[in-house]
Amino acid sequence: MSNPRTSHFSVPPTEALRVDAGFDLSTLDPGATPGWDHGRKAAEKSMARRGRDLSDLQERLFAHGRTGGERSVLLVLQGMDTAGKGGIVRHVIGMVDPQGVDHAAFAAPTAEELAHDFLWRIRRRTPRPGMLGVFDRSHYEDVLIARVDDLVPRATWEARYDQINEFEAELAASGTTIVKVAMFVSLDEQKERLRKRLERPDKHWKYDPSDLAGRAQWPAYQEAYQAVLDRTSTPAAPWYVVPADHKWYSRLVVTELVLDAFRSLDLDWPTASYDVAEQLALLERS
Amino acid sequence: MSNPRTSHFSVPPTEALRVDAGFDLSTLDPGATPGWDHGRKAAEKSMARRGRDLSDLQERLFAHGRTGGERSVLLVLQGMDTAGKGGIVRHVIGMVDPQGVDHAAFAAPTAEELAHDFLWRIRRRTPRPGMLGVFDRSHYEDVLIARVDDLVPRATWEARYDQINEFEAELAASGTTIVKVAMFVSLDEQKERLRKRLERPDKHWKYDPSDLAGRAQWPAYQEAYQAVLDRTSTPAAPWYVVPADHKWYSRLVVTELVLDAFRSLDLDWPTASYDVAEQLALLERS
Repeated sequence: MSNPRTSHFSVPPTEALRVDAGFDLSTLDPGATPGWDHGRKAAEKSMARRGRDLSDLQERLFAHGRTGGERSVLLVLQGMDTAGKGGIVRHVIGMVDPQGVDHAAFAAPTAEELAHDFLWRIRRRTPRPGMLGVFDRSHYEDVLIARVDDLVPRATWEARYDQINEFEAELAASGTTIVKVAMFVSLDEQKERLRKRLERPDKHWKYDPSDLAGRAQWPAYQEAYQAVLDRTSTPAAPWYVVPADHKWYSRLVVTELVLDAFRSLDLDWPTASYDVAEQLALLERS
Repeated sequence: MSNPRTSHFSVPPTEALRVDAGFDLSTLDPGATPGWDHGRKAAEKSMARRGRDLSDLQERLFAHGRTGGERSVLLVLQGMDTAGKGGIVRHVIGMVDPQGVDHAAFAAPTAEELAHDFLWRIRRRTPRPGMLGVFDRSHYEDVLIARVDDLVPRATWEARYDQINEFEAELAASGTTIVKVAMFVSLDEQKERLRKRLERPDKHWKYDPSDLAGRAQWPAYQEAYQAVLDRTSTPAAPWYVVPADHKWYSRLVVTELVLDAFRSLDLDWPTASYDVAEQLALLERS
């Protein structure tokens, strides 16, 4: 059994990391570990335990999806290059059954995608009932890189914040619990992680010379992220900001945030739609 | 380190389970463990080790997909109810990074799917370059249940074997390594597994009264599977028959079969398309 002194948050991530009115991104310390005072080793143990709970609840959601339920969960991951989005997918989402996961990575839009409204490709990938959807990048790129790099006129991206809120409210009303996670690394930690990609031949494929452009535009991205957090953290789809210089911390808290979303569904196993005793008797004779 | 005496197959699954001309399904013992003489515990250890190799090679494939490579791997899973297809996804595919997995479960076709050629929905889900695709059921249902239940005229399903072979040859020629796995449980073991689903409330959702129909049609399904194995085990896309009464065995050998497909790609890490030293210098100044 676990040691309760090292398995608990002093403040739950849903409170410690939630973005409320007046949140100031410039005060965030990417090296901090809000709500967790037990260090790395205890975090890794705690995460494995939470992973088993998550896996159990995810199967219940999947079972409900198979038996007419309408609920789903969507994890939206945002963050600058090297913030650790991929690591979340591998290490957090990797703890649950792949059958119940619908993972979508949104790269630069294709010509076909650009010919549609920016939410077109996003709507196509929202999770079906019973599924845990994961967006690695998302519609938020359309108010982040699109804003920073002037890919569309100001009036276009300005209008998107409200469009996003309406879309997410609609999604939530139709049964999807949305967990939005923005991961922040420091400029120094990012340099370290990019250096590692350049120094190791097995990591070269993860590096792109355009990654340096993001560093040069750091203040513009901070401003664009601040606007996202100010304007799109809603009761139906709140943002959580995750300090991400410590990978063990960001993985632990994202596990907990997703687990909390599943707990909030309060799902029991679905009841049988057939007569169990009758089927048992038929089975014995078969 | 592993004990070499208990980590090796006496005959590799690619040989022991491969369907060649003249294969007779009626001689298959679902309780056997061909090629593995070390029992369950050693199998589980060996599988975990193979899982790490698989995870490593899968990342290489993914890296190639990101850098212009054209290869992919497709695992096709077939088997009667309770044969353990879901367990393969959870326990074998669950060992690799979800980012690199494209999982598709094919249930009874929708009205839209039925309005198209039977391969329409299948082609839409073939894996992109760099991905490990997994089909939980597949186009083979169109010559299994479709044949057994007379869902289409005989001439229609008769023509499908060649259509399937052409489709798979085309897929293989475009860079997809195809691994087809047919899992077989005994009638007794299936009864045991269905009983468990009926006895445990957390498994009720996995049971469907129509599962009993499959038991009543067992000989017809055996015949339909025999035709599949006779007519669609090709050099480009061979079938492997997996005795599945022992879950630890079927999971071990499917891991090995998929791992072998990855090994056959013989992938190294992609080389950088940029000047590494130059980027390192630019990074330091950023």
